[in-house]
Amino acid sequence: MIPTKGYAAPSATEDLKPFSFERREVGEHDVLIDILYCGVCHSDIHQARNEWGGSIYPMVPGHEIVGKISKVGSAVTKFKVGDLAGVGCFVDSCRTCESCKEGLEQYCEVHNVGTYNSLEMDNKTVTYGGYSSQIVVDENYTLKVSEKLDPKRVAPLLCAGITTYSPIMHWKMGKGHKVAVVGLGGLGHMAVKLAASLGADVTVLSTSPSKEKDAFDLGAHNFAVTKDPEQVKKLKNTFHFIIDTVSAPHDYNLYLSMLKRDGTMVLLGAPPEPTPVAAFNLISKRKRLVGSMIGGIKETQDMLDYCAEHNIMSDVEVIPIQKINEAYERTLKSDVRYRFVIDMASLNKD
Amino acid sequence: MIPTKGYAAPSATEDLKPFSFERREVGEHDVLIDILYCGVCHSDIHQARNEWGGSIYPMVPGHEIVGKISKVGSAVTKFKVGDLAGVGCFVDSCRTCESCKEGLEQYCEVHNVGTYNSLEMDNKTVTYGGYSSQIVVDENYTLKVSEKLDPKRVAPLLCAGITTYSPIMHWKMGKGHKVAVVGLGGLGHMAVKLAASLGADVTVLSTSPSKEKDAFDLGAHNFAVTKDPEQVKKLKNTFHFIIDTVSAPHDYNLYLSMLKRDGTMVLLGAPPEPTPVAAFNLISKRKRLVGSMIGGIKETQDMLDYCAEHNIMSDVEVIPIQKINEAYERTLKSDVRYRFVIDMASLNKD
Repeated sequence: MIPTKGYAAPSATEDLKPFSFERREVGEHDVLIDILYCGVCHSDIHQARNEWGGSIYPMVPGHEIVGKISKVGSAVTKFKVGDLAGVGCFVDSCRTCESCKEGLEQYCEVHNVGTYNSLEMDNKTVTYGGYSSQIVVDENYTLKVSEKLDPKRVAPLLCAGITTYSPIMHWKMGKGHKVAVVGLGGLGHMAVKLAASLGADVTVLSTSPSKEKDAFDLGAHNFAVTKDPEQVKKLKNTFHFIIDTVSAPHDYNLYLSMLKRDGTMVLLGAPPEPTPVAAFNLISKRKRLVGSMIGGIKETQDMLDYCAEHNIMSDVEVIPIQKINEAYERTLKSDVRYRFVIDMASLNKD
Repeated sequence: MIPTKGYAAPSATEDLKPFSFERREVGEHDVLIDILYCGVCHSDIHQARNEWGGSIYPMVPGHEIVGKISKVGSAVTKFKVGDLAGVGCFVDSCRTCESCKEGLEQYCEVHNVGTYNSLEMDNKTVTYGGYSSQIVVDENYTLKVSEKLDPKRVAPLLCAGITTYSPIMHWKMGKGHKVAVVGLGGLGHMAVKLAASLGADVTVLSTSPSKEKDAFDLGAHNFAVTKDPEQVKKLKNTFHFIIDTVSAPHDYNLYLSMLKRDGTMVLLGAPPEPTPVAAFNLISKRKRLVGSMIGGIKETQDMLDYCAEHNIMSDVEVIPIQKINEAYERTLKSDVRYRFVIDMASLNKD
């Protein structure tokens, strides 16, 4: 077993603090990754605080991992020692169901093994995430990261990037499309960059006029304040696609009314309670309300390659691990542009 | 002007009763249709009783019309005197917007002129529907009806038929697909017949075990009672498509859980209040909740031709117009298999 340092939430109500544990030995298909950076996703907070239920403690969060391969198993073919590598939201799945066979392991019909707060396929070994010094992962669930990009700005691509890239590609958003992005956070800012890079005409919809400059800086072409009824009225039947990244309670019908005929609103965030949908809003112009969850391994690699080619990275604020509890509070207040990323070298300072 | 006999609702709270009015003269692009049969759609009741607001009285309902052409305008090319013809839910639209140009006049961006309880494109002439002796309609909004089919059983195809056919074709339902139909009424029974005719494996989902025999008689392959938690559990992640024809309040999430990954639930009925949707239900398997409204003229003709070729017709109970108020009460109790159709010859008995 491999001794590992990390930060863990001891329970739903306690701050994260230093935690020592062990990783499995490097199996024949495994790689050992020395973690350089790990992004801080809003879902880390939800799970650390057991807001979705079923949390397993102590919990080492983190599923936006970039690091350097320091050891490879005997059967590993994709990686060699010294390669940059990434790990996203999951580290295994059944590999035999229809979804796995189609490269959509995130929708595995049997069990998708979360990078943390989950059980391995053996249904008993708890997984620990990226707020740690190293991780052992099957090479088939490990991504190649280009040396061309800044690794700390790549980390959030492993969740925020792929979560927006996957529906953008699945629904073929791009040139000739008016795409709106709701919520300018970790996911939203990546949605703007990715959709704009594909030639879409991008509008940021925000409740706050203060986000306007940021929206344009990120590459948006238009900005509208959804609290202004005049602006909302003008946007009726406007968008081919709306990418909704908000997980706080909000009014879907307001946004659905802004879709064109045959338009699609993609939900990426899950509000705590079900949200009322007026059927007539969907029926009257054959509109679609759809969901999407992260992405498969193949499309995550495609996304990383696409980002390397187009020089697309997340905008990040780097913190030492010792600031993680403060970062959680600031994330909850949306006081981050746009993703906290932990510099894992800081683990040695404890 | 052409003197016309019909039945009208004088107000939201009064029974329908005999009403005399005038149709416009037959214009150069118009046809005059002597109405043989008119179906009774649930939306006739909603509108007669002003349940959707904005109703115009006196109101002559009826948008499932089959009759015989008795006069044609000088420029008419599609029809000749003696032809069987049909009229559905609308009789005009702007003809120039993107939707109209694509043959999707039901989604006209300017104004879709309802067959009744609507205003013509002049924005002042009230339209009167098919509970009447005759109707004058532009030939471009008139459908050809095959002599091969029983006209009284064709009438409901003009609304119930096209409303189910359009999404079935748009979403390419057919062979290899498991399709569920929710609600076995006017729309639902057509959805079963049409989906089965295209080779889909059709399941009727009903709250009542008493519908089982009917479901199989209509061509369904499976039947499940949604009030039985055991049956619901077995159907989790089962269907490629769910066609939801119910306009009473009901739980979307129950049905969404029965969709497979990438499955689509099509809403055809609009419950009076918005319905709560759990985002996670859509996100976790990339599911889709979509709407669809009737169909365009071209696809309505395609549907009628398809039904003639495959001998598909509605199951109807024929009534004289004098029984219309009683038929409304029975429709509200779902006490009809599956559509009341008015024999318009009965108008002469008043």
